[in-house]
Amino acid sequence: IRKLGFNTDAIITGLLKGNKTQLSKAITLIESNANKHEHAVKKIIAASLPHANKSVRIGITGVPGVGKSTFIESFGNYLIQLGKKVAVLAVDPSSSISGGSILGDKTRMEELVKSEAAFIRPTASGDSLGGVARKTRESVILCEAAGFDVILIETVGVGQSETAVHSMTDFFLLLKLAGAGDELQGIKRGIIEMADAILINKADGQNKKAAKQAKVEFKRALHLYPEKRSNWIPKVKLCSALENWGIEQTWEMLTNYFSLTKKNNFFEENRKQQNKYWLLQSINEQLKSQFYNHPEIKKELAEQLEKIHQQKTTPFEAANYLLTLKR
Amino acid sequence: IRKLGFNTDAIITGLLKGNKTQLSKAITLIESNANKHEHAVKKIIAASLPHANKSVRIGITGVPGVGKSTFIESFGNYLIQLGKKVAVLAVDPSSSISGGSILGDKTRMEELVKSEAAFIRPTASGDSLGGVARKTRESVILCEAAGFDVILIETVGVGQSETAVHSMTDFFLLLKLAGAGDELQGIKRGIIEMADAILINKADGQNKKAAKQAKVEFKRALHLYPEKRSNWIPKVKLCSALENWGIEQTWEMLTNYFSLTKKNNFFEENRKQQNKYWLLQSINEQLKSQFYNHPEIKKELAEQLEKIHQQKTTPFEAANYLLTLKR
Repeated sequence: IRKLGFNTDAIITGLLKGNKTQLSKAITLIESNANKHEHAVKKIIAASLPHANKSVRIGITGVPGVGKSTFIESFGNYLIQLGKKVAVLAVDPSSSISGGSILGDKTRMEELVKSEAAFIRPTASGDSLGGVARKTRESVILCEAAGFDVILIETVGVGQSETAVHSMTDFFLLLKLAGAGDELQGIKRGIIEMADAILINKADGQNKKAAKQAKVEFKRALHLYPEKRSNWIPKVKLCSALENWGIEQTWEMLTNYFSLTKKNNFFEENRKQQNKYWLLQSINEQLKSQFYNHPEIKKELAEQLEKIHQQKTTPFEAANYLLTLKR
Repeated sequence: IRKLGFNTDAIITGLLKGNKTQLSKAITLIESNANKHEHAVKKIIAASLPHANKSVRIGITGVPGVGKSTFIESFGNYLIQLGKKVAVLAVDPSSSISGGSILGDKTRMEELVKSEAAFIRPTASGDSLGGVARKTRESVILCEAAGFDVILIETVGVGQSETAVHSMTDFFLLLKLAGAGDELQGIKRGIIEMADAILINKADGQNKKAAKQAKVEFKRALHLYPEKRSNWIPKVKLCSALENWGIEQTWEMLTNYFSLTKKNNFFEENRKQQNKYWLLQSINEQLKSQFYNHPEIKKELAEQLEKIHQQKTTPFEAANYLLTLKR
């Protein structure tokens, strides 16, 4: 982008017409941390905001190997056949470490990549979770302004990124494999609690029996969680992306969910709560980072911890002392 | 305390000799939020700190009616027979709302209350959780300096106070009743995850069969949680405070736990981590309260939320704007 230069007005005009090249440029500007792009980014977002908020946002998670890309390929193509425009984004702050970014392997989305009605954007890598989350949230706004009406946000089922994705989507889908032994081990309970549906993937061929058994186990596990504020009862479904089976049923389930939550007002209320969450989250993160990154605090914090350890002060006295330093 | 006045030096001398009247006065000073007592509090804590850190700290939680007071009466008296000095504190920020403070009903601890080797202190009421937590943590230090070697910290199994108690104790004990239907419903998974042991109380008479069945269910549930950093495998035990049964076994279990965690260094390491937790927790709370209680921020926060709702700004832009106000 630095080499080519850019024209903010052209980006805005193109983006609002659904031009994917301009949309892509706009997202690149958002992902750039350069101060010189700040003004352009603000302008693009301001122009997009009145046209945003019109899509459904679906979070998709699952450990590597569960078949997320293959599922998104089938699911995305099905939605496009229904006349939808589908954007696929990813939240994966670990990608810079693990090397292999999700959505990086677009060969598994061969057909979707080529489709005019699809927009696929891999992760902004090398960033903190907070940073990736902000960029993804703002990219969602641009995608919506560009007319995409189903936004799929993919994340890897490890670490804290699920909470972030859960807090920026309307529906949270957990993909699982059957037949990996004790089905409940290895997934964090928090993720199961967030899930609006668990889709047992690759429920084909020899896996079919194990998948059906897993379904029973997950249903029992979900039963232990408190009722959702949405009044939605989380579902457990079987799916085979390979055999292209379960895709239609997944969309049917989603339309049931959206009709329920739009009727009982949870859909709207939840988005409002999510906005508030991100506002407070963003403030709290910055308050902390300003404080702890202060050179004097860094030095004194270590000293106070040592003093606590030597029983010369208490954590609360130490906290008060450190807070007076920055006043 | 205002009426009587107080003598800081007399408090310190008495407290270090194990005088319960002076210990009580010292805790009242800690609980007082008056600025004029700040200096005295600092002095008392400073004098106590070198003598602190020598007890075992046991957190006890369970919903109202589970029999915590009766259990503590039996357990405390048993420990005193073994030659221990037992302090009982409580964390319950809700007491000012619910009216009935825990430990308030000392009639259930008739014998313990009268014992020379016991010190019982009800909740500091009418305070935030952070405030209660700080006061309880500092009271623990004073109790330890006064020679109490087993500190029991009671909390009610509702709300956030368990996390606070879990973060200031060496062992976390969950009391449960059997026979209340689906055993796992109604307790937050987080609490089960924190528990080092689940004690099924009132496992007597007609309850016995249900209690045994509950034990099996809890064991299965505990199996789903990840291994503890302490390497301790959480236990499920039956207990009848009424029949004075299971008390000895509970202490035996605790001594096993302490011998394991002192050997593998978790005990020491955990206390170090807890100190760090409270230091950072206390800083973060104060950073937030300073920010959000600022009159200008209060006003502008509401306005920014409204602007987000009207799609005129994003949560991240709003956060940046609010943060510039306080610079």
